[in-house]
Amino acid sequence: MDFGYDAATEELRKRLTEFMDECVYPAEAEFERQAAGSGWGMPPLMAGLKQEARGRGLWNLFLPGEHGAGLTNLRYAPLAEIMGRSPRIAPTATNCAAPDTGNMEVLAMFGTEDQRRAWLEPLLDGRIRSAFAMTEPDVASSDATNISTSIVRDGAEYVINGRKWFASGAMNPDCAIFIVMGKTSQEGSSHRRQSMVLVPRDTPGLTVVRGMHVFGYTDADHGGHAEVLFEDVRVPVENLIGEEGGGFAIAQARLGPGRIHHCMRLIGMAERAVEFMCARALSRTAFGKPVAQQGVVQDWIAESRVRIEQLRLLVLKTAWLMDTVGNQGAHTEIQAIKIATPVTVEWILDKAIQVHGAGGVSQDFPLAGLWAYARSLRLADGPDEVHKRSLAYRELKKHMPAE
Amino acid sequence: MDFGYDAATEELRKRLTEFMDECVYPAEAEFERQAAGSGWGMPPLMAGLKQEARGRGLWNLFLPGEHGAGLTNLRYAPLAEIMGRSPRIAPTATNCAAPDTGNMEVLAMFGTEDQRRAWLEPLLDGRIRSAFAMTEPDVASSDATNISTSIVRDGAEYVINGRKWFASGAMNPDCAIFIVMGKTSQEGSSHRRQSMVLVPRDTPGLTVVRGMHVFGYTDADHGGHAEVLFEDVRVPVENLIGEEGGGFAIAQARLGPGRIHHCMRLIGMAERAVEFMCARALSRTAFGKPVAQQGVVQDWIAESRVRIEQLRLLVLKTAWLMDTVGNQGAHTEIQAIKIATPVTVEWILDKAIQVHGAGGVSQDFPLAGLWAYARSLRLADGPDEVHKRSLAYRELKKHMPAE
Amino acid sequence: MDFGYDAATEELRKRLTEFMDECVYPAEAEFERQAAGSGWGMPPLMAGLKQEARGRGLWNLFLPGEHGAGLTNLRYAPLAEIMGRSPRIAPTATNCAAPDTGNMEVLAMFGTEDQRRAWLEPLLDGRIRSAFAMTEPDVASSDATNISTSIVRDGAEYVINGRKWFASGAMNPDCAIFIVMGKTSQEGSSHRRQSMVLVPRDTPGLTVVRGMHVFGYTDADHGGHAEVLFEDVRVPVENLIGEEGGGFAIAQARLGPGRIHHCMRLIGMAERAVEFMCARALSRTAFGKPVAQQGVVQDWIAESRVRIEQLRLLVLKTAWLMDTVGNQGAHTEIQAIKIATPVTVEWILDKAIQVHGAGGVSQDFPLAGLWAYARSLRLADGPDEVHKRSLAYRELKKHMPAE
Amino acid sequence: MDFGYDAATEELRKRLTEFMDECVYPAEAEFERQAAGSGWGMPPLMAGLKQEARGRGLWNLFLPGEHGAGLTNLRYAPLAEIMGRSPRIAPTATNCAAPDTGNMEVLAMFGTEDQRRAWLEPLLDGRIRSAFAMTEPDVASSDATNISTSIVRDGAEYVINGRKWFASGAMNPDCAIFIVMGKTSQEGSSHRRQSMVLVPRDTPGLTVVRGMHVFGYTDADHGGHAEVLFEDVRVPVENLIGEEGGGFAIAQARLGPGRIHHCMRLIGMAERAVEFMCARALSRTAFGKPVAQQGVVQDWIAESRVRIEQLRLLVLKTAWLMDTVGNQGAHTEIQAIKIATPVTVEWILDKAIQVHGAGGVSQDFPLAGLWAYARSLRLADGPDEVHKRSLAYRELKKHMPAE
Repeated sequence: MDFGYDAATEELRKRLTEFMDECVYPAEAEFERQAAGSGWGMPPLMAGLKQEARGRGLWNLFLPGEHGAGLTNLRYAPLAEIMGRSPRIAPTATNCAAPDTGNMEVLAMFGTEDQRRAWLEPLLDGRIRSAFAMTEPDVASSDATNISTSIVRDGAEYVINGRKWFASGAMNPDCAIFIVMGKTSQEGSSHRRQSMVLVPRDTPGLTVVRGMHVFGYTDADHGGHAEVLFEDVRVPVENLIGEEGGGFAIAQARLGPGRIHHCMRLIGMAERAVEFMCARALSRTAFGKPVAQQGVVQDWIAESRVRIEQLRLLVLKTAWLMDTVGNQGAHTEIQAIKIATPVTVEWILDKAIQVHGAGGVSQDFPLAGLWAYARSLRLADGPDEVHKRSLAYRELKKHMPAE
Repeated sequence: MDFGYDAATEELRKRLTEFMDECVYPAEAEFERQAAGSGWGMPPLMAGLKQEARGRGLWNLFLPGEHGAGLTNLRYAPLAEIMGRSPRIAPTATNCAAPDTGNMEVLAMFGTEDQRRAWLEPLLDGRIRSAFAMTEPDVASSDATNISTSIVRDGAEYVINGRKWFASGAMNPDCAIFIVMGKTSQEGSSHRRQSMVLVPRDTPGLTVVRGMHVFGYTDADHGGHAEVLFEDVRVPVENLIGEEGGGFAIAQARLGPGRIHHCMRLIGMAERAVEFMCARALSRTAFGKPVAQQGVVQDWIAESRVRIEQLRLLVLKTAWLMDTVGNQGAHTEIQAIKIATPVTVEWILDKAIQVHGAGGVSQDFPLAGLWAYARSLRLADGPDEVHKRSLAYRELKKHMPAE
Repeated sequence: MDFGYDAATEELRKRLTEFMDECVYPAEAEFERQAAGSGWGMPPLMAGLKQEARGRGLWNLFLPGEHGAGLTNLRYAPLAEIMGRSPRIAPTATNCAAPDTGNMEVLAMFGTEDQRRAWLEPLLDGRIRSAFAMTEPDVASSDATNISTSIVRDGAEYVINGRKWFASGAMNPDCAIFIVMGKTSQEGSSHRRQSMVLVPRDTPGLTVVRGMHVFGYTDADHGGHAEVLFEDVRVPVENLIGEEGGGFAIAQARLGPGRIHHCMRLIGMAERAVEFMCARALSRTAFGKPVAQQGVVQDWIAESRVRIEQLRLLVLKTAWLMDTVGNQGAHTEIQAIKIATPVTVEWILDKAIQVHGAGGVSQDFPLAGLWAYARSLRLADGPDEVHKRSLAYRELKKHMPAE
Repeated sequence: MDFGYDAATEELRKRLTEFMDECVYPAEAEFERQAAGSGWGMPPLMAGLKQEARGRGLWNLFLPGEHGAGLTNLRYAPLAEIMGRSPRIAPTATNCAAPDTGNMEVLAMFGTEDQRRAWLEPLLDGRIRSAFAMTEPDVASSDATNISTSIVRDGAEYVINGRKWFASGAMNPDCAIFIVMGKTSQEGSSHRRQSMVLVPRDTPGLTVVRGMHVFGYTDADHGGHAEVLFEDVRVPVENLIGEEGGGFAIAQARLGPGRIHHCMRLIGMAERAVEFMCARALSRTAFGKPVAQQGVVQDWIAESRVRIEQLRLLVLKTAWLMDTVGNQGAHTEIQAIKIATPVTVEWILDKAIQVHGAGGVSQDFPLAGLWAYARSLRLADGPDEVHKRSLAYRELKKHMPAE
């Protein structure tokens, strides 16, 4: 059990922190102004930030192996935390933003050479964006066997029919490619019926219906969450990722690193929230003393610190386990961080909001937006409750009498 | 002790419920469609609903005394609950929407005959809307002695300078009048320096700067929450409400009934949320059984019911106390309902959202919007923590040794 | 709707409060001293208090109908609250202590004339005590169909075999009679197989094995909680209460009023705890100011007050419903008070303990003992979770599509 | 950051686990039986267990440096966790029980050669036990400057006057020596007025008044918690530990390792509680299915696992920090584990109790006793709230503008 930051990690943390200090934080206010008028597109200043990040060697850091920066999960995790401190800018500026990250991982792991040339390369290059379409409006998608979109082979093509929503990234005008999960078979083991296919955005029959909101936000900065209709959408069989029936396995493989990224970014947000909370509490006076001297506010600050320290250690350990014993060996921990992190960071953000008074719920501070994001992660990849039940089963199994 | 509603209340509840069933719920979907394109204005269908409500004798029910329906707080409270079940439509349709309600109460109680003729009558008639400007961006406004907007007498006029925000209602194009709280004196008791004045919206020097957001929402349906700049705004001294230095006392008087309204509407929202939660849990299947059979979901449903029952009784008792012993005698209870209701209803809405999966945070269900509203009420009229501290002081005082 | 107590109730509250002030509180310290040396028996001073209470007309107040004081649930409830302020003394002194109260109700409602003469009269007279034996160590007794003690008819006798525990009252040397729940049939509807029989304590084959602890307490002051073994225990068939198969129905009837009593006593304890909390916080100084000025302590005090007010109203409404529409009509509320009250009062007691520092967990304050009692009520009559599930089913049923 | 278990630690964990499996767990039932009749003394079987542990090289493992086993905090921590799985037996059997551990550390670090010969040696040898007397009944002792016991020099002696309570270990008949904190000066810096002196138990004027209870328990197994009266107690000046005015510094030094021990033992208890919870849930059936299939119970199990994993990592990191940068550098973490661990383990124990029904609060399972212990640790070394406030101050300080 060694999950400290080694020298290489420390060097990257330093370099990334400098980028944040010199380029990202100073751009936040202008980013918000531009975003207000950019619709579903990226604020113009992002292009310059991407170039800057790339020039500083802060590009594709998330991707292990030959195609990316080659970092382990344990090395990337603290960088994701730093990016999470400005989550509307830093992940995109460094080409480390979801859902592209997960999609690139899938292509790097399971894509054919052709698929990688066609889609992985431009994604790694930051020229296009992508979407991931799994959740469906008509079924409880946390149970992935419920997924009903059909992918039927017809000669040299697959024909796709179904309705998806919360396909993140799909509203972005730069989004060029969808990874779509659907059913290629109605028979066999319930976890071997699903497959994933690549669907270019301009394929006939694919309609991006509308952007779903998250609370009152469109989340345009990460490409929104689209409702997407597939009506007799045809793609060549070469667009299958991996093998038929392999959809579940790919989804599982995609999931582990994504959890680390999400959770570390959330921890970065929590750290930023604590900074906001302290700064505000120190700067405001009510009923004769600074808000920072209110016992209840102090209690919130202390609890926030205590909880953040625990979360970070748990996520780092999970990353270390993934690196050393693989996703399977880290199964409990991968669920544990999903269960613990969003709900805890949501709590911290709530307290930071409360310290800010009415300003806290408004557009003048990033807190309400971050809160909505953390809240939505209690549902992303399935509600926390589903993961708790699954984790409990494994815990109970240890105590079941051998048969 | 008798926990039943009296016959007159039951008759009004029945009449209002019929209006909800026949006119309001059926209009909800269309309301949302129209609202998406109405900017800061009211969706067109509202005009018809107002006429209908008025025709059914469901108009200005909130206002006690000769100017309104003349109901006690205890009689109006259960009607506010019913309105709260469709909070974007029903309160406005019945001319019972904040901040007009509080403003009309202030005018009815403290207004001169001229003021009532000029502003109360058109408000009661539903021809204009109004705004209330108290909170300021630059100070911790929960401590009202911090308020810094100046109202300086200059001959026959008051000159107003300052910056307000979260002036609810001010973005509405129909908003014609502001009630503004400011400092008329820098001396004397710290609770006698504030006054309230009426400022017509078109007064030179008054600039509505922008609408503040609440978790991404503009709250256009109740007129938004404006940032408002007052630069040498001049109004005749006749626009003073009550007496100079009376601002605090008016604010206190305005507050009690408003709390009842807010809290009962929240309870109506909570009831609606439980209905949504049950319906969704019954209609979705995951992992082999209806979501309604999940123990954790059942726990949420039961807790919601148990908490709602307690809240409603507390609010009703508070209304009864206000009717029988007055706002002063109901001081503890008026704070107690502010402390208990928003946070509890927020909890219930959170659970209803969780049962709805990704849909719960989206625009396809009212839950996320209601949540944001409940959350913001943990800050409105000052953060809950301020009220808890004040309530605790009174509790401690009972146990202090007599001197 | 009227939230005031009627005149008769107010008079009894006044009379009981005088008894508490003049006799009960002053006796508390000596009671504890005597209790330390009394083993399972009552401290000697109790006899005098009983005589005094009886002389003041404060006797058997719990029992409605001709056999007792004839109070409604709504009138008795506030008296139970007052008794709960000194729960080790006041209920016993006024002959209103569990489990005798429930047992007397059962005898009054379902007993034959002979049974009433033999057992109800001496119980009402305070000459004997009683026990109620339902829970079993070997099964999950919250599901009463699990109960396995057998009651088999053999000619003119019933033969009882089984093991019970947490038979409250059974360790008391004055305990003369048990009401025992068991199975008289292995067939038929699962809720019609159980019956209740009267078993005198000295019946051969009945062994009181030991007293169960509640945390470290023996609860000797209310007769302990015995493990009891029934080995071929024979009683005449005349000892059956009500009819064969009626055990469940009697248990249900016994339950409603008992819940009111328990919950109102808990509320009395909570009020006492708040008094202790305030007094302590005012009397101690740490880090330069009285503990009462610590924000977190103020938060606890305010929350306690807000929660108590809600609980009391819910319990009173439940009592009112029981009086007006009966136990069936009050089903949801009877469960709701069981779900809400113990856990909330436990929370308040926990905070009161925390304010007292190490003293709070010790024998020098009643708080730790009261806490253990409140905690045990989260399990008595079945864990809260069982009641929540049941309440949720009823809530869900309202929303099920009619078939 | 490397806080894994190295080979030496793994070997000790294995050896200790064997001792637990072979000697401790099998002795638990008999230990309880003997304890019931042992008053304040140790159950007789403990002597054999101590011999056995010593023979296996499991003795004084807690003590770093030359006088003990020489383990770092990071190496000892996982052993403390294992001991905590049977906390009434294992710590004492291995001579690693509080308060002796802290007292031995103090003597090893600050004692003179004479003091070490007289008291450290027999303590290390397990021949005597000891007590630590700091808390006082008459002041809020969490603010140690409140301590009022006086230690006044009179020639070659110190004269001690004052009243202590919760002097853990003092009821044990084998307790031979007290470490007493008191005021040697009324002047100077408020943190330099206190000193610690050694007071043999048989010193005239020292009266052990009584044992304090913790939720009904006497905690005889770790020597109880005595109220102790010091009336003109005289000890030679050589009994001063360290220097005059050094009491605070010694208390601080004593505290860090003690926190690690306490917290890791609590984590061991929590692991044991999860085992009990799972085993019970699997073995009981209610309402037609095993309790283990109840969603709420699964939720508790999952939450317990997720929280334990976080706690353990935080405590291990704290131990590692103490080893690498010292108590000062680990200040925040030492407070954080005190804030997080007892309250979380208390929560887990509460859930384990609830799963056990009435049995859970009784003497038939260790859960209620462990709960009381965990609860009391929310107060030991000062209430959690004091530590939160202090931690918050440090967090706020980071954000204060430089002056």
